[in-house]
Amino acid sequence: MNPIEGHLSTRSPLHNILAPTGIAIVGASADPTKRGYKAMVGLIKDGYRGNIYPVNPKAGMILGVRAWPSIAAIHGNPELALLCTPAPSVPGLVAECGRRGIKGAIILASGFAEMGEEGARLEREMMAKAAAHGVRVIGPNTSGVFNLHHHLNLLALDGLKAGDIGIISQSGNMLLALALEAQHNGQVGFSTYVGPGNQSDIGFNDYLRYLGEDEHTRVATLYVEGFRDGRRFLEVARDVTAVKPVVVYKSGSTEQGQKAASSHTGALAGSYQMTVDVLRQSGVSVVQYSDEILPVAEGLGLLQKARGKRVAVIADGGGQATIAADRLAEAGLTLAKLSEETRSQLRAILFPQASTLNPVDVAGSSDANPSLLARCMEIVAADDNVDSVFLVGMFGGYSLRFAESLLGDEMRGAEAMVDLSNVTTKPLVVYSLYAPIKPPALRRMHEAGLPIYASIEHAVRVLAALGERGQYLAERKRQAPFAAVTPVPSVQAMLASARQAGRDLLEYEAKALLGDHGITVPEERVVRGADELAQVAAELGDQLLAMKVVSRDILHKSDAGGVRLNLRGTAALKEAYQQIMTSARIYDANARIEGVLVTPMADKGVEVIIGMMRDPIFGPVLMFGLGGVFVEILEDVAFRALPLSRFDATCMIDQIKAKKVFEGVRGAAAIDKKALTELLLNVAHIVEAYPEIQELDLNPVIAYPDGYAVVDARVIVERAADGFFPTEPIKKEPA
Amino acid sequence: MNPIEGHLSTRSPLHNILAPTGIAIVGASADPTKRGYKAMVGLIKDGYRGNIYPVNPKAGMILGVRAWPSIAAIHGNPELALLCTPAPSVPGLVAECGRRGIKGAIILASGFAEMGEEGARLEREMMAKAAAHGVRVIGPNTSGVFNLHHHLNLLALDGLKAGDIGIISQSGNMLLALALEAQHNGQVGFSTYVGPGNQSDIGFNDYLRYLGEDEHTRVATLYVEGFRDGRRFLEVARDVTAVKPVVVYKSGSTEQGQKAASSHTGALAGSYQMTVDVLRQSGVSVVQYSDEILPVAEGLGLLQKARGKRVAVIADGGGQATIAADRLAEAGLTLAKLSEETRSQLRAILFPQASTLNPVDVAGSSDANPSLLARCMEIVAADDNVDSVFLVGMFGGYSLRFAESLLGDEMRGAEAMVDLSNVTTKPLVVYSLYAPIKPPALRRMHEAGLPIYASIEHAVRVLAALGERGQYLAERKRQAPFAAVTPVPSVQAMLASARQAGRDLLEYEAKALLGDHGITVPEERVVRGADELAQVAAELGDQLLAMKVVSRDILHKSDAGGVRLNLRGTAALKEAYQQIMTSARIYDANARIEGVLVTPMADKGVEVIIGMMRDPIFGPVLMFGLGGVFVEILEDVAFRALPLSRFDATCMIDQIKAKKVFEGVRGAAAIDKKALTELLLNVAHIVEAYPEIQELDLNPVIAYPDGYAVVDARVIVERAADGFFPTEPIKKEPA
Repeated sequence: MNPIEGHLSTRSPLHNILAPTGIAIVGASADPTKRGYKAMVGLIKDGYRGNIYPVNPKAGMILGVRAWPSIAAIHGNPELALLCTPAPSVPGLVAECGRRGIKGAIILASGFAEMGEEGARLEREMMAKAAAHGVRVIGPNTSGVFNLHHHLNLLALDGLKAGDIGIISQSGNMLLALALEAQHNGQVGFSTYVGPGNQSDIGFNDYLRYLGEDEHTRVATLYVEGFRDGRRFLEVARDVTAVKPVVVYKSGSTEQGQKAASSHTGALAGSYQMTVDVLRQSGVSVVQYSDEILPVAEGLGLLQKARGKRVAVIADGGGQATIAADRLAEAGLTLAKLSEETRSQLRAILFPQASTLNPVDVAGSSDANPSLLARCMEIVAADDNVDSVFLVGMFGGYSLRFAESLLGDEMRGAEAMVDLSNVTTKPLVVYSLYAPIKPPALRRMHEAGLPIYASIEHAVRVLAALGERGQYLAERKRQAPFAAVTPVPSVQAMLASARQAGRDLLEYEAKALLGDHGITVPEERVVRGADELAQVAAELGDQLLAMKVVSRDILHKSDAGGVRLNLRGTAALKEAYQQIMTSARIYDANARIEGVLVTPMADKGVEVIIGMMRDPIFGPVLMFGLGGVFVEILEDVAFRALPLSRFDATCMIDQIKAKKVFEGVRGAAAIDKKALTELLLNVAHIVEAYPEIQELDLNPVIAYPDGYAVVDARVIVERAADGFFPTEPIKKEPA
Repeated sequence: MNPIEGHLSTRSPLHNILAPTGIAIVGASADPTKRGYKAMVGLIKDGYRGNIYPVNPKAGMILGVRAWPSIAAIHGNPELALLCTPAPSVPGLVAECGRRGIKGAIILASGFAEMGEEGARLEREMMAKAAAHGVRVIGPNTSGVFNLHHHLNLLALDGLKAGDIGIISQSGNMLLALALEAQHNGQVGFSTYVGPGNQSDIGFNDYLRYLGEDEHTRVATLYVEGFRDGRRFLEVARDVTAVKPVVVYKSGSTEQGQKAASSHTGALAGSYQMTVDVLRQSGVSVVQYSDEILPVAEGLGLLQKARGKRVAVIADGGGQATIAADRLAEAGLTLAKLSEETRSQLRAILFPQASTLNPVDVAGSSDANPSLLARCMEIVAADDNVDSVFLVGMFGGYSLRFAESLLGDEMRGAEAMVDLSNVTTKPLVVYSLYAPIKPPALRRMHEAGLPIYASIEHAVRVLAALGERGQYLAERKRQAPFAAVTPVPSVQAMLASARQAGRDLLEYEAKALLGDHGITVPEERVVRGADELAQVAAELGDQLLAMKVVSRDILHKSDAGGVRLNLRGTAALKEAYQQIMTSARIYDANARIEGVLVTPMADKGVEVIIGMMRDPIFGPVLMFGLGGVFVEILEDVAFRALPLSRFDATCMIDQIKAKKVFEGVRGAAAIDKKALTELLLNVAHIVEAYPEIQELDLNPVIAYPDGYAVVDARVIVERAADGFFPTEPIKKEPA
């Protein structure tokens, strides 16, 4: 479907498309309110070095450039076309581009899939033409493109600075907002921007791959309303994040926002939490608020990743130190425990009333001597317990606040911080109250590549992103390669038979499948007649037992009276067996009843659930959560895409908000996280080995201080396209 | 203790102290690095109109002003003194101030209670002198004071604009940060600033009362690390929020931050969540992040409160509209459902592809006609379903982005928005991507009193604060006056006897107390011998029963084997009775055992807890939460200070994060919220009626679709100072 795929060993074709030697502007115009005018102006003003071919039926000259009546009429070899014409004209123009040898077309028009069925039809027609003529399409419904290092500015945006932040944004206004923020920041510049629009051909994954390869891009920054091929995106993201940071803002964190987004780009917004979880799994730095996008992108681009999450705070006032401590803790960062050596070095240069605990509060020591703060940063940066250094307070403003004569010392301090940033492997993050008015010391540091933050909240987001990125890359390096699992022939046969029958696995079959792949399952029996019960009772010993009807036709066993709990002894089993049979017959006289499953009651423990679904955007995704009310009320669950690494499995468990439950409450012992991790990995292996498994649910699993019990398991099998039996709609059984 | 209290009918003495006709600067200096120099410069530069009396042993002239060798030597009548000298000199100088008739002293020195026991001793000495000589003290350990409308700037801060935001900040750097942010904002000005420091005399409540009365202050803004007299603060806040907004940032949201705060000001940080809950109960707008303080204060000061939480969004681009929709939903605001009339009016002026659902997306309609956005705002503002209007996008930048010729129309749009803001009763909140570069249309609106936000996140915080304030004031107006409860003599006697005995109420006594005040309690019996059991069994009918030992000496009944559950019939009761007696004797041979409480087992339902504690900062505080793991793991609880209104009680229940449980999960019916509300009110009344109740716990209460059951109740009684029996340390029994 997407011709860019399968060429991973070659460079992305976007490098050529986005740096053409000639460009056709179809719908070029001398009317200043038209996009066909603006694009011309942008190219000319920014000094585009290739040839510009305006296309307009009236031909003549446009902005001093010779225009052509049609694409076909152009003398020259444009490599890229910008189509500024309305939607209905687009399919024909795309074909014309192809015939003229143009390899890429940027389609601004809206009125395609985002506008309903008629638009979708037009989009399909356009894509058929594009495929037939070998034209790659950016858009439709795109806000446009720029590639500043090639002087290609089709947005005619003023005040853009070439730099190293690449942007892919499904909203043109978001790009504009970032551009204005960058202009105000003064130091941030951009490499390439693309609006992917409807992504009918080239999608987020292709653009990300391009930015990953682009030598001018240091950070890839994305505003996403919806992915098309999310699974492919994750693969690309995993590759790109290994070499440079990828920052994503995903809209649609609420139902209200998802509705707004789908009317905007026509894309499925998808589950927000799932999207965030799987992006993070691929090393992406996800930002939660739109006003954090640029600060985090700038910080990740300029600063080194941190080895870990232990931050040393150097402050010259208690208030901001307190706020910093709060925000760091909320972001999952910790205050580094400074070594005795570090503290004694600090004590040697600070006033006696200073605090050398972390946050270090210099308590006036730097009032007449602001460069002392640089010295403090140097001291804590040398401490092995410290992963990053956070300067908090009024550095940069000492000469304004106290005495102009301090300016020299303050500038020396700024130089010392710049020098330190060049020799240390630890990130230095600077928050200054004076940032809004940009005094000389801060300007000097910013020019030298040290970002300066005017908000403690933003600075902490940067510290968190640096710490997460550092830990993530280190953990990923440690991961053993993913071991492929060989399917077991008997399991394959069982799945094939269920598939042919148009049914899902029965509970005991599902558990047997789990058991075949290293998962501990209860010792249980299917009883096909009351006369077998005495023997089963003897085999299963003196434990409390549960009985559940076994029938491919009864999905809701409890509703059918097909479940009995807390049974002990042959007599009780026999009575329950008869009752289950009677109830099941009343419930559905035609149900094919295979027998009754006799299984031990699980001891009390912590109820968790594990599920796998094949997500339309991200493919097979594993879910883990606390069971019972926690999953229903609090939606306290974690998602990871497959393949799943051991690190991923560990992170899933640690991500649960109510994870304190795992440590033991009300006197209970901590649960066996190692066993749960193995269980998650085994489930992942099973899903990879049997693509015919459509959905899988272990619900509940009871976790114990030693091991776990899988109480119920469901395996939903892909329906055979030509099965003999009619397939039932797949309904979930209430837990 | 605090002389300002008890004078509520008179104006705060701070009005005089902060607008003195003469001021003594003790420790005035010609050395530019000294505070005694800075204060002089600040007064002179800002044109202070009163007399300045520098005090310095060397006398002479300081900055052209005649100095005096001591306070006593001053010719003239200073009303206020600024003490810039070190801590040890302070007690003597305070006395000297008093003798000279000076009514207020601002003490900059640190080295008092925040520095440990020796400092605390010095602080007590200073306070004794102040009380003896009738001097009111600001500080010590204060960053200082300004009152810009009186040209009193003791901080010598440059670039301050007189305006209507009053600030009380326990951090001088926080004031500085806000001042720099205001300078950058360009429109925000300040009235009075005070650093309360250690609040050894004048506290947050006094300063807030002053700002509430001050005609120059439209919004009171506070940075708080810890309150001293929190209860009094709540009372003042309740009065002040009725007339003007109060914005509070409370630090110490995490343990890490609380530690940092307590080393800074020496104040108890208190429980963050309790503080936030009781502040909101008093109508305070609490902001969570430090970078929201100024935006929210500015918005609350300039804009009208909203009637409710239904927001109409007008957008000119899908991306920001989506982000706005997400943030609004997260903040508990809703997208207003626009009326058919409104939508048809919008359709009449917008392009056909525009969306007239909310968010309204003009989809290019305003590109050549930006003032159209003002017209859209006017239309939605007239809709009864709309409580506030949120403009999102690039207004202000049309003439920059599209064509300079649009400037005239854009300015007309700005005027129309200003006009609309003057006639509508609904707040208009504007987010513009162009805010960072302040184009003329935005500058015009800002000058006319419409704040302009550069962050969607901040704009939404303002909308939320306006909606919360509007709803809060409306609800408070509707509240019936709090009905005082008359203590019941028999209950008073029971409490007095427990108090004399140095013990808490027994469970059955606690339940009787509850029952005496309209709370439904189980029908239960205290059995004082096995022979009574047959009759009790008959009386309580054929229900499952629980038995619990009744002994003032056994606090942990379960540990003592003193609890048996799920009993039915006389035989079972007798067996359990004997067993409880035996176990209790083994547990504590000397325990005075009164008998056994026989009580019905509660049916299954939703487990909640209700508690009351006397908080050292806020006095009696009620807590409500979900029971079991919810309270232990998620700390999902709500606090309210007493007295409790019906509105407060409703809000407590609605505040629970997992409140979906109340609506019924897994097929259960919704619980009886009305009964729970009554229960909370009854508990509040009991606590008010009996000040000798030190702590009260109903844990658990089981809530049903119809009513509730109080399963266990504990009442901890204040110990008599001269009780005959030694008092035991109060330990909580594990639930």
